Amino acid sequence: MENFELHGNIDQANNFIETMKSGRFLFSFVISYTETCEIPGITFAGADMNSIQFTPPADAEYLHYGYCKTIDKIPMTPDGKPTPGLLTKTALESSSIPHLTVNAGSKVLPQLPFIETGLQFGKNISTNDAMTDSQVSHAVDYGRIVGRSLASLTDCLVIGESIPGGTTTALAVLRGLGFDAKVSSSIPNNPVELKNHIADSAIERIDSDHPYSIVAKVGDPMIPFVAGMLSSAADVSKVMLAGGTQMTAVLAFASKIGFNEENTVIGTTSYITNDESANFTNLVKKIADIPAISVNPGLENSKYSGLKAFSEGFAKEGVGAGGSIISSMMKTGNDSTKYLDLVEKEYRRLFTSL
Amino acid sequence: MENFELHGNIDQANNFIETMKSGRFLFSFVISYTETCEIPGITFAGADMNSIQFTPPADAEYLHYGYCKTIDKIPMTPDGKPTPGLLTKTALESSSIPHLTVNAGSKVLPQLPFIETGLQFGKNISTNDAMTDSQVSHAVDYGRIVGRSLASLTDCLVIGESIPGGTTTALAVLRGLGFDAKVSSSIPNNPVELKNHIADSAIERIDSDHPYSIVAKVGDPMIPFVAGMLSSAADVSKVMLAGGTQMTAVLAFASKIGFNEENTVIGTTSYITNDESANFTNLVKKIADIPAISVNPGLENSKYSGLKAFSEGFAKEGVGAGGSIISSMMKTGNDSTKYLDLVEKEYRRLFTSL
Repeated sequence: MENFELHGNIDQANNFIETMKSGRFLFSFVISYTETCEIPGITFAGADMNSIQFTPPADAEYLHYGYCKTIDKIPMTPDGKPTPGLLTKTALESSSIPHLTVNAGSKVLPQLPFIETGLQFGKNISTNDAMTDSQVSHAVDYGRIVGRSLASLTDCLVIGESIPGGTTTALAVLRGLGFDAKVSSSIPNNPVELKNHIADSAIERIDSDHPYSIVAKVGDPMIPFVAGMLSSAADVSKVMLAGGTQMTAVLAFASKIGFNEENTVIGTTSYITNDESANFTNLVKKIADIPAISVNPGLENSKYSGLKAFSEGFAKEGVGAGGSIISSMMKTGNDSTKYLDLVEKEYRRLFTSL
Repeated sequence: MENFELHGNIDQANNFIETMKSGRFLFSFVISYTETCEIPGITFAGADMNSIQFTPPADAEYLHYGYCKTIDKIPMTPDGKPTPGLLTKTALESSSIPHLTVNAGSKVLPQLPFIETGLQFGKNISTNDAMTDSQVSHAVDYGRIVGRSLASLTDCLVIGESIPGGTTTALAVLRGLGFDAKVSSSIPNNPVELKNHIADSAIERIDSDHPYSIVAKVGDPMIPFVAGMLSSAADVSKVMLAGGTQMTAVLAFASKIGFNEENTVIGTTSYITNDESANFTNLVKKIADIPAISVNPGLENSKYSGLKAFSEGFAKEGVGAGGSIISSMMKTGNDSTKYLDLVEKEYRRLFTSL
């Protein structure tokens, strides 16, 4: 489709697009938390320091109810730019794609029914190991169960995530697993130095080449859990990892525990694939022989600065925005022009109701 | 199908059977708890007083893993008769029907991923109100959300439950809502007197004809939650309430909050529909114009006393056994002879591995 850019395994990308024209999608939204997000300047996924912990459950509530219960407004950056969940909500609602929330270690529980996994949130990797090895095993095992169950209910399981600070743990995991990774982030002047410093200091604690041990020391709960979901789900249905840098870390860890590449794609926004500070598509190619599909939501044409901002590098990805837009366009045949119209309607609804 | 007996709305029953020959089933297993089960002699759903609270999560674990984690063996009666979950497990596994566990107020959490609702367990209705009105609202609201989500992922949502002592709260709710109900139970010499006494004493506390208030005073969390599931799910897909007396209480409460009768059936075992101590099929007819489908699993022909016992009135129903057997027979075309063979295999597997 003309809305998409294809990277990596192009044949498989075209096969996926063809197959899913008539297929059912299920969006699973995995919320988690790492104390790494409490390092000043590392993330802007919240209006202030204290609100960051509420962003994952609030995103889940917004996707479901159209408003949040845990906080008054939808999650925003300190200067009032809205959560990429706005892009996801518009995509899922306009295409009637069902979604489920999965709690994989969120610090705050969402006020809606969700799939519970019993995972703890991750510790700050600049000072501590994120998890124990057995917590990583628990995450992978429960991820496998959830992935198998959800994949048996659809033709394509789309997996998005919300874990503030997650690009830094992703960077550390990628490097710990031996990949030369740069990260994207939700801030245009990506604090690369800070993230590199934290990742490198965390990596110094690695004392084993066992992937579980590496993720335990420098990762977060989302990475092994979603990798577990992928490893079982891709044997049952198509799977789309919906995200940027963080999903490359999931992919890197999943490549160590094994997954079915033939059923796997990664879907994101063109803001990620065009991001100079990251090397997304090359990184995906290095990790696995799968397609990366990116979509340009056309927000640069929006009359609203809050939407235009996404195209200018603020919150380029998150809440599975890219993958859910791709899924909705496949299902409805909408193009970026139509999508922009829909997302502007939702933007108006939100910012007149607030 | 010759395996089934049809009651109530026969045309709709035949239409359901015809439609679902090619349809997808999803089994949802709702676990809950009422302190009413702690009244001596009220239930045998557990080897002893202390183990009753572990029965719902252990049933969920057994359905998923094929063994339990919360307790060593599968749930049993004091004299060693196995849980009806054995019938459910055999049905779901032999027909590859996917299932999800939903926690709607279990006292003990299952050791697997499950859908969490934040509901508290119910109080003993012989001495207290079971819940507050707002807890009932929460149960209905969250039930609606879960029902809509799961129904959007299948053609028929099958709902089973596990709540020890639940036939007594069901009896109280049915009478509180004005239905002349007798109960079935997991004991051949059904302690009707005891249950009637508890139900009647509980009903004396009812001081409002509002259905929410009645369920709050004399019910349990499972009843409003599953009624909420039914009320939203039946607008999206077919729904089969899998159970006996307890599902008639769900049906009675759902008839007050409204649900789509055209998409609803109740499925159970012939041990329930033939139970002299209960008036199951008449009760269903009084509550709603829907079909009741019952199956004879043929366990009276088993060489194992532990299986034969079900046909002799021990644990005639539970864990959605009847509805899951009906669903599996619709999907696979198996008859009772084939099913008996499968369930005896599972029985051998369990009782040689214990």
